[in-house]
Amino acid sequence: MKATVLYGPKDVRFEERAEPTIIKPTDAIIRISATCVCGSDLWPYRGISKYSEPTPMGHEYCGIVEEVGGAVRLVKPGQFVIGSFAASDNTCPHCQFGYQSSCVNREWMLRAQAPMLRVPFADGTLVATPGIPPDEMIPSLLATSDVLGTGWFAAVAANVKPGMTVAVVGDGAVGLLGVLSAKQMGAGKIIAMSRHQMRQNLALEFGATHIVTERGGKGVDQIKAMTSGVGADAVLECVGTQESMMQAIQATRPGGSVGYVGVPHGVELDGEKLFYTHVHLHGGPAPVRRFLPELIDLVWKGKINPGKVFDLTLPLNEVAEGYRAMDERRAIKTLLRP
Amino acid sequence: MKATVLYGPKDVRFEERAEPTIIKPTDAIIRISATCVCGSDLWPYRGISKYSEPTPMGHEYCGIVEEVGGAVRLVKPGQFVIGSFAASDNTCPHCQFGYQSSCVNREWMLRAQAPMLRVPFADGTLVATPGIPPDEMIPSLLATSDVLGTGWFAAVAANVKPGMTVAVVGDGAVGLLGVLSAKQMGAGKIIAMSRHQMRQNLALEFGATHIVTERGGKGVDQIKAMTSGVGADAVLECVGTQESMMQAIQATRPGGSVGYVGVPHGVELDGEKLFYTHVHLHGGPAPVRRFLPELIDLVWKGKINPGKVFDLTLPLNEVAEGYRAMDERRAIKTLLRP
Repeated sequence: MKATVLYGPKDVRFEERAEPTIIKPTDAIIRISATCVCGSDLWPYRGISKYSEPTPMGHEYCGIVEEVGGAVRLVKPGQFVIGSFAASDNTCPHCQFGYQSSCVNREWMLRAQAPMLRVPFADGTLVATPGIPPDEMIPSLLATSDVLGTGWFAAVAANVKPGMTVAVVGDGAVGLLGVLSAKQMGAGKIIAMSRHQMRQNLALEFGATHIVTERGGKGVDQIKAMTSGVGADAVLECVGTQESMMQAIQATRPGGSVGYVGVPHGVELDGEKLFYTHVHLHGGPAPVRRFLPELIDLVWKGKINPGKVFDLTLPLNEVAEGYRAMDERRAIKTLLRP
Repeated sequence: MKATVLYGPKDVRFEERAEPTIIKPTDAIIRISATCVCGSDLWPYRGISKYSEPTPMGHEYCGIVEEVGGAVRLVKPGQFVIGSFAASDNTCPHCQFGYQSSCVNREWMLRAQAPMLRVPFADGTLVATPGIPPDEMIPSLLATSDVLGTGWFAAVAANVKPGMTVAVVGDGAVGLLGVLSAKQMGAGKIIAMSRHQMRQNLALEFGATHIVTERGGKGVDQIKAMTSGVGADAVLECVGTQESMMQAIQATRPGGSVGYVGVPHGVELDGEKLFYTHVHLHGGPAPVRRFLPELIDLVWKGKINPGKVFDLTLPLNEVAEGYRAMDERRAIKTLLRP
């Protein structure tokens, strides 16, 4: 088969690779229906985070189970399944507490930008849909695999409750779906921080009630001005830079919460300054597996349509253009069909 | 009157100062029944944190109301009252959310190691006891003013719930009362980290079920070993150094919570490392005012005896010895009687 491999900064190739096979009896092989490019894929693509070259890419996926190992009990060939970017046994103590992305047997998924994928701990990692979905539902189901699951976790980590004032830092696909998540959780006022018209429109469609175009200290001042000087109850940090993290912390009222899901790059927090802000801080790689049943159900019933973040769909063999479009911010998120 | 003034490192003097007077109509003047030396007083005493010299000292206090300003409605002369180290109006949005130590009108208390004290926002800051307490209850009532209120907040911030496994980093008076607080909140296993026999004994008396004498990575390994490799559900950080903070974070299970109340000195948190720990982080200067009614009630009814942390009582004019004894760890905490 042909699959996606990153050779170096801005050098994505679609090349011949061995088809995956069952290695452990807990594995499954799935035939990918759709995969996509993640905002976090752009860090190595831009040469900012390091990796061993060449590295296979992709960690968001859904598709049909082709084959399962001898120890797999729950997942069956022919099912349509969705999994998280972190394979997990779903039985260890961390999984039981709902932190499957810290599973003691965690394996980071790679190689999903391909037609076929091996998924470890299939019973713990994959969740089957009630049936084979119609084609038009696939983008929204794919979104639950990471980008919606991560935005949702940001809102959970920021302790969003009905009536709250919520601010979202970051207008990438995760931030936009953070807006959708906050809306689902009953937030009263949802402030999206964005300076891009197209992304603002999608934020408004997903439930944002206000847009703030300023960043940094000026953005914080705007949030304060919109909350009678108090600050937001909950802030979703969906970027991962020092500026965005400080923007999130400073926009939060004392006692409020920051949910941070942007993988931090070069972020340093001054303990004493953080202490006096009185914020709650929680985040990390989203335990998507915890949320998958609920999110799949919301999509299946047509209550949410997170697939709208995919504003570019390409055949998988044009994956390199998919990266370029996101890198140049011509696309919010690229969906790839094998 | 004579009162306590810090002139420089290890130079505490008890010298003539003007008696406080009502400055604003919301002030009260109280005659101090007991005050004490705080662990945080040792930072400037040791020359580690900076201040303008000479600086009056003391922020823990209880006593009899002597006089109130014209706008004071709730507090009356003759009442026995306790206040927090942060004067607060108790009406602003932050106060209403329970974060009185971030009150928009906050004033840090100083000058309490003295016979008389001016308290701003008396109605918001002070809580009266049901009557004049017996002399032997005064140490425990004084403890609610900061050291118990702070240990209590550490446990609240660490989200301690019945049955949880709780670890406490720091065996100063705050850490020891963190143990007492966790016990009151129903913790199942309480692990006190201490290498001092006398402090271990008090921790056990306050409800600790286990003692860990190792620090740093070895201390973390011990906590992991005691929790089947999982980590503690809740960790109270009651020191404020880089080592203690990392010890607390690393001893917490993914999804668990760190409540940090030790004022951070030189603490830097690496955003990416914190991200992958999956811990909840919350802390800051304790909003003692939120807890005062409940804590006073527990003391008044004899359900807790936090005053046991005072293992040295001196007349106020021997305050310099009180600092020395704590600095040299000869005393856990010094109570001063004017």
